[in-house]
Amino acid sequence: MTIESTVATLGPGTFRSPLNLRQIDDAVDDGGFVVEGTRVRFDVEINPDHPDSDLLFEKAGARELLYFNPATVRAAIVTCGGLCPGLNNVIRSTVFALHHNYGVRQVYGIRYGYQGMNPAEGEPPMLLEAEQIDRIHQEGGSILGSSRGNQPPAVMVDFLVKHGINILFTVGGDGTQRGAHQIVEEIRRRGLTIAVAGIPKTIDNDIQYIRRTFGFTTAVDKAREVLTCAHTEAKGYPNGIGLVKLMGRDSGFIAAAAALASQDANFVLIPEIPLTLAGDNGFLAALQRRILDRKHALIAVAEGAGQNLFSGEKIKDASGNLLHQDIGLFLKDVISRHFKEQQIPLNLKYIDPSYIIRSVPANSEDAVLCDQFARNAVHAAMAGKTDFIVGFWNSFTLLPILMATAKRQQVQPNGFLWRSVISATGQPARWG
Amino acid sequence: MTIESTVATLGPGTFRSPLNLRQIDDAVDDGGFVVEGTRVRFDVEINPDHPDSDLLFEKAGARELLYFNPATVRAAIVTCGGLCPGLNNVIRSTVFALHHNYGVRQVYGIRYGYQGMNPAEGEPPMLLEAEQIDRIHQEGGSILGSSRGNQPPAVMVDFLVKHGINILFTVGGDGTQRGAHQIVEEIRRRGLTIAVAGIPKTIDNDIQYIRRTFGFTTAVDKAREVLTCAHTEAKGYPNGIGLVKLMGRDSGFIAAAAALASQDANFVLIPEIPLTLAGDNGFLAALQRRILDRKHALIAVAEGAGQNLFSGEKIKDASGNLLHQDIGLFLKDVISRHFKEQQIPLNLKYIDPSYIIRSVPANSEDAVLCDQFARNAVHAAMAGKTDFIVGFWNSFTLLPILMATAKRQQVQPNGFLWRSVISATGQPARWG
Amino acid sequence: MTIESTVATLGPGTFRSPLNLRQIDDAVDDGGFVVEGTRVRFDVEINPDHPDSDLLFEKAGARELLYFNPATVRAAIVTCGGLCPGLNNVIRSTVFALHHNYGVRQVYGIRYGYQGMNPAEGEPPMLLEAEQIDRIHQEGGSILGSSRGNQPPAVMVDFLVKHGINILFTVGGDGTQRGAHQIVEEIRRRGLTIAVAGIPKTIDNDIQYIRRTFGFTTAVDKAREVLTCAHTEAKGYPNGIGLVKLMGRDSGFIAAAAALASQDANFVLIPEIPLTLAGDNGFLAALQRRILDRKHALIAVAEGAGQNLFSGEKIKDASGNLLHQDIGLFLKDVISRHFKEQQIPLNLKYIDPSYIIRSVPANSEDAVLCDQFARNAVHAAMAGKTDFIVGFWNSFTLLPILMATAKRQQVQPNGFLWRSVISATGQPARWG
Amino acid sequence: MTIESTVATLGPGTFRSPLNLRQIDDAVDDGGFVVEGTRVRFDVEINPDHPDSDLLFEKAGARELLYFNPATVRAAIVTCGGLCPGLNNVIRSTVFALHHNYGVRQVYGIRYGYQGMNPAEGEPPMLLEAEQIDRIHQEGGSILGSSRGNQPPAVMVDFLVKHGINILFTVGGDGTQRGAHQIVEEIRRRGLTIAVAGIPKTIDNDIQYIRRTFGFTTAVDKAREVLTCAHTEAKGYPNGIGLVKLMGRDSGFIAAAAALASQDANFVLIPEIPLTLAGDNGFLAALQRRILDRKHALIAVAEGAGQNLFSGEKIKDASGNLLHQDIGLFLKDVISRHFKEQQIPLNLKYIDPSYIIRSVPANSEDAVLCDQFARNAVHAAMAGKTDFIVGFWNSFTLLPILMATAKRQQVQPNGFLWRSVISATGQPARWG
Repeated sequence: MTIESTVATLGPGTFRSPLNLRQIDDAVDDGGFVVEGTRVRFDVEINPDHPDSDLLFEKAGARELLYFNPATVRAAIVTCGGLCPGLNNVIRSTVFALHHNYGVRQVYGIRYGYQGMNPAEGEPPMLLEAEQIDRIHQEGGSILGSSRGNQPPAVMVDFLVKHGINILFTVGGDGTQRGAHQIVEEIRRRGLTIAVAGIPKTIDNDIQYIRRTFGFTTAVDKAREVLTCAHTEAKGYPNGIGLVKLMGRDSGFIAAAAALASQDANFVLIPEIPLTLAGDNGFLAALQRRILDRKHALIAVAEGAGQNLFSGEKIKDASGNLLHQDIGLFLKDVISRHFKEQQIPLNLKYIDPSYIIRSVPANSEDAVLCDQFARNAVHAAMAGKTDFIVGFWNSFTLLPILMATAKRQQVQPNGFLWRSVISATGQPARWG
Repeated sequence: MTIESTVATLGPGTFRSPLNLRQIDDAVDDGGFVVEGTRVRFDVEINPDHPDSDLLFEKAGARELLYFNPATVRAAIVTCGGLCPGLNNVIRSTVFALHHNYGVRQVYGIRYGYQGMNPAEGEPPMLLEAEQIDRIHQEGGSILGSSRGNQPPAVMVDFLVKHGINILFTVGGDGTQRGAHQIVEEIRRRGLTIAVAGIPKTIDNDIQYIRRTFGFTTAVDKAREVLTCAHTEAKGYPNGIGLVKLMGRDSGFIAAAAALASQDANFVLIPEIPLTLAGDNGFLAALQRRILDRKHALIAVAEGAGQNLFSGEKIKDASGNLLHQDIGLFLKDVISRHFKEQQIPLNLKYIDPSYIIRSVPANSEDAVLCDQFARNAVHAAMAGKTDFIVGFWNSFTLLPILMATAKRQQVQPNGFLWRSVISATGQPARWG
Repeated sequence: MTIESTVATLGPGTFRSPLNLRQIDDAVDDGGFVVEGTRVRFDVEINPDHPDSDLLFEKAGARELLYFNPATVRAAIVTCGGLCPGLNNVIRSTVFALHHNYGVRQVYGIRYGYQGMNPAEGEPPMLLEAEQIDRIHQEGGSILGSSRGNQPPAVMVDFLVKHGINILFTVGGDGTQRGAHQIVEEIRRRGLTIAVAGIPKTIDNDIQYIRRTFGFTTAVDKAREVLTCAHTEAKGYPNGIGLVKLMGRDSGFIAAAAALASQDANFVLIPEIPLTLAGDNGFLAALQRRILDRKHALIAVAEGAGQNLFSGEKIKDASGNLLHQDIGLFLKDVISRHFKEQQIPLNLKYIDPSYIIRSVPANSEDAVLCDQFARNAVHAAMAGKTDFIVGFWNSFTLLPILMATAKRQQVQPNGFLWRSVISATGQPARWG
Repeated sequence: MTIESTVATLGPGTFRSPLNLRQIDDAVDDGGFVVEGTRVRFDVEINPDHPDSDLLFEKAGARELLYFNPATVRAAIVTCGGLCPGLNNVIRSTVFALHHNYGVRQVYGIRYGYQGMNPAEGEPPMLLEAEQIDRIHQEGGSILGSSRGNQPPAVMVDFLVKHGINILFTVGGDGTQRGAHQIVEEIRRRGLTIAVAGIPKTIDNDIQYIRRTFGFTTAVDKAREVLTCAHTEAKGYPNGIGLVKLMGRDSGFIAAAAALASQDANFVLIPEIPLTLAGDNGFLAALQRRILDRKHALIAVAEGAGQNLFSGEKIKDASGNLLHQDIGLFLKDVISRHFKEQQIPLNLKYIDPSYIIRSVPANSEDAVLCDQFARNAVHAAMAGKTDFIVGFWNSFTLLPILMATAKRQQVQPNGFLWRSVISATGQPARWG
């Protein structure tokens, strides 16, 4: 496998970093200046039957030489797409790292996503001062606001030029980062020296080559609470079924992790495992056996599960995400009809927690992660890296945007996480 | 006003209470044996322009003389209707008060509501032993399970007779308690000496003459969390609206209190205040003004609000509650259509937390309340009171079932709670 | 009993209230203008053996005629003494009620308690603008800061005069309110027309004639969490004892309510029940029996419990509160020594949650209470009432400061709350 | 570096695993049977100036061939040392993996740590049945109980022999695991075929070669809550200082991560960074500057910090851990004295949350981790591995006990975590 994983730069560093660090060449003691050329392995295993992977990532961290003179940096930050726990932490740590560590005083917040970079559509940016934003990490959401969809790259680059921005931080998922890459291309076309630094935001944890993104464990915490409620409802009535729809359009990480944390779910349905309803090895027969045996059942279904059951044309939202048929309501109907046909009385409680999962403040784990993603984005941008997003794979890394957004990260059907879910739920590994 | 508020008894007390208390005749120092005949005022005000109310309640509390010999009591407890925070606390404190305070060893739990009193439908009862149920108050739901709807009174009394039950504790709302009264009538018809003691369960806090029922403040806590999420979503997008449907079929106490606690809601819609959509003084115009002025809005709507907008025949559920049109989805559509017509872009997020509000464990306030409702039910039942529910109005009271269930308690449109909501939200006091 | 419970006024109302209410003379429908002269009963019981109490309170609520012209009001608010959940809610609702409901625009926040009214000691006051303080109710503590102790009344009245303040809201406990009364006396001496409106703040719920103060149920929630932790520790080791010190200098309400909510405590020690350690009926023998019988025990001790065991001179803090000997550490030592003497191995875990209990944001119940206390203080002050604190006893009331601070409210040893604790813990009603 | 990292086995596998998996030779798709000989890299970096580390770990996971016949396995599990969030999850998942996945029916719980393996000291073991322990993961603590200290290895092996135990799971920290190694040595001496499988339990996250242990993030969550309280107290009074003592005897991970998550701490004191109090570059001068500048400060101190300030002989507890001087109380005194000498008024609030941090249920992240540690311990033990503990370093691993317990894991003074703390707090990187 040969993947081009080296990140683009605006040019060599010429300013000495104001950070008071020393060169570090030690794998563990890794808080100093990173030696250029340091790589992080994708594959940590040595297997008798299996050659090593060639895939290596660029290591994130502070650089001794900066491309940008901190005194002349005007930075801007934009948050796009769906809300995610930790957005305010990321905004705050980006501003604080620029301000306190690099001495950059001009940091702007762009209002309501890319919309705020189009003067015809949005509101003007706001100056972000350290004192004013000191408490924002304790609230959910984004103080900048967000929106879905991109704006014309030329318009957005005009905006950057007009406001004298030379570093743009884009916080968003793969649609947002593909938009960021278009901005980079327009910047290149015009020969400008503006860095575009991506911070990955995906509550579903579905960006390739990034093991963990911020907001995910907070979402799992909330999803687990909802599963507990649904379990209580299911046990509270004869033949009670709790059916909970969780986030996860293309990847079932939230459903899988929440089920594993709660240990109460009997069935976890995720996009990665095709769903078969009918037949002896189908979902409905398994559910019926469970109800007849134990009188209650709990089902966690990721919103992108069972899409194989739907046919017809696909629809996309403003960010370019496929819009799915509502598997939750579909299952609610199918299950009700099945038990009616079988003349088995049923108490089905359907819960769609929707925005409750994503609008809460970050838990501690995510708060730490946000701080580290933000600081690494600042380090790399000050060093002149561009067209990248910060990654995390055994260590913090830097990834070319196109590499990270080429494919979605998914739950491996034969991997340890899914095997654990199978063990914890007792459900079959495959349907049909 | 003359209301018959004296509770029925099976007969005079002849057994000395095993409780080590003394007669108490002091309003504050009220933990001793209650003197029979003590009453609690409904009306605590003395108003120059207004005569005192005649309405007096019977005071709850331990009695010195018991009708039942603790050695021969076989009690049973049943939980009916929707889940409510604190059901397990009530079960546990009822068993513990009977067991530890009165020495009653035979307490049965009836499975899945009144269904468990019909051998043709339900499962056999379970013996509730103190040791086994010691931790149940830390979990939501009901360990006994619940169900909606009543069973034939004759069948239920047969069940009591067959199992030798002489005290039945019915935990439920007004449908359940009307069912309990039918059991009492059947008991009377047969000349049996079985006491039926009601413990009011209404998460909506809508039973007449009872200021506070258990589960309510826990529900408000959870509802407030959801309002905070919706507020975050509303502020997170241009022209963002958070629309939250809360419990409250006939009474808007949860929506009102949660809005007051959160202070974030701009509009609170409750069943007690008829809803007008159109016109300058209508809801849609007010919402539009808010959005144009502040760019975000938060709406809390009780499930029973705006029913004046629907016509046609009413449908009831198995417990006899009116089934409402779904005001939440209705408003979601109406609002979306209105802003589309006005060509104002909108980001509307609809949240229906449903079962998440009611299936959590009781908070401290409710936990204490559960303990006190349960103990008062036990005191009264041991003294031979029957056909009553425990109330709380300035003090714990006993109410004839028919009196409590005659009418629903509602938010007073001119009362202090609703005035506070008007002040906190800034919404008009009336629509249209 | 004849107690002077009528609140002082600066003079008759002459300005029509801007509130859009009507006269209300109905006990339930109580959100309109209160008719002057309306009283609230202290005693709600009618008892065959016991005459009615004469004690009546003045009813709180909006008045139709105001003493102050809203256009000329300059108000100030000060928070004093220990932190308490809900202080920011009170500050916010006071400002919002003045601003949005009465049209008062000049509201000042005094920094760090009464210290901020002494220019030689403190910082200048800050203007409180509605927009700026919109989110403060979501944080614990007081944005104004607090401090213990009073300042010379003459200095504080000079401060009010200098800043043109004509309404002062004092949020604090009995020491603070006694200080407020001294301010009133100095105002009277000088013939000024400045109203002093007290809002009671006591996390211990120990102000006389006020059934419930804000912050209390939040403190109970947190205290219950700590009891659960201590119970877990106690059960986790052979002969494990969890010993938790809770707030409650003179009144054991927090310890009693938290024990009742958790149902895990085996011993609750409060100031109202003298503690005897030695002897067969003493605490140590009871604890030893429990440990030998069940192998674990949980003790909740209020900080003011067992003071009868200490002799010698009493010390007071800056607010005039008696400083107590540390009963927690004392019991830790005494218990350890006792079991050592008895040669019974022991695992004693001592927990002093201290400030963790009081510095959290208000729960929903307290948030609502804060809003209502604040609004009632504003209503009364605008009507020219002075030298009062807002109370709550069956309804919101107004109390002369001296009446409320004359004595502490305490847990009644024969009352329902303590009887419930005795029932839930199984401990003896009295020691020795 | 050549470290012997291969784990001991009782012998080759001869029984086919009942798990329905296939051989997996893919780094990502890692949930199948692990090929014997697969290794996991310690060092994931490739650095131009730095050779690769030789250190490789054995990969954990299910093996195709088992040493033990599931039909004849009698397993036991023991929890030792301090409580830690997740103990019940580990117990439950160990039993469930044995029961549901391998068909082992006889699993015993040993009471109160190693004490329960000494009949002269402890109570008899209890049979752990799947149904009975189904809800235990929702409670903190350990249902088995725990204790400190080891018992004579010969006595413990006698216990295993007497009860026919052939797999012992030891859940505990390095003291416990060194005890487990002594058991292994005694087993070897006697030529027995009993496997000893360690599951690492260290809330401080301080076991070498294990990046993350269960309970840690839950502890950080709780510690962050306490820091927030202390920050509120500090800001609430003039010259307010919040001083919080956190867990961390030898390693400051909890203090560092909680400070990073809260972003409120101004000073984090950990064992890894020697503390200097006096002098211009000392802690007291820095604290004084902060107070004079900002009027409030928050200090998080790990219990093992500043031990360089104490001299004299060291004391150990029953588990062999060094007992430290109480740095929290020491700092409280030193700071108070310093500000008194400087005649700067001070409001110092000291908080020692102690057991509150460790006795709560596991959060979602830890719940998942517990499940995975437990399942990997079961997989390895069934395959005949012994004298090991399960590790986690980029992937789940198996470590010889002696290797893991040879040294403590600590915060790297030049590492990324500590650099982040320095950036977030603004405190100097070194004292003095």
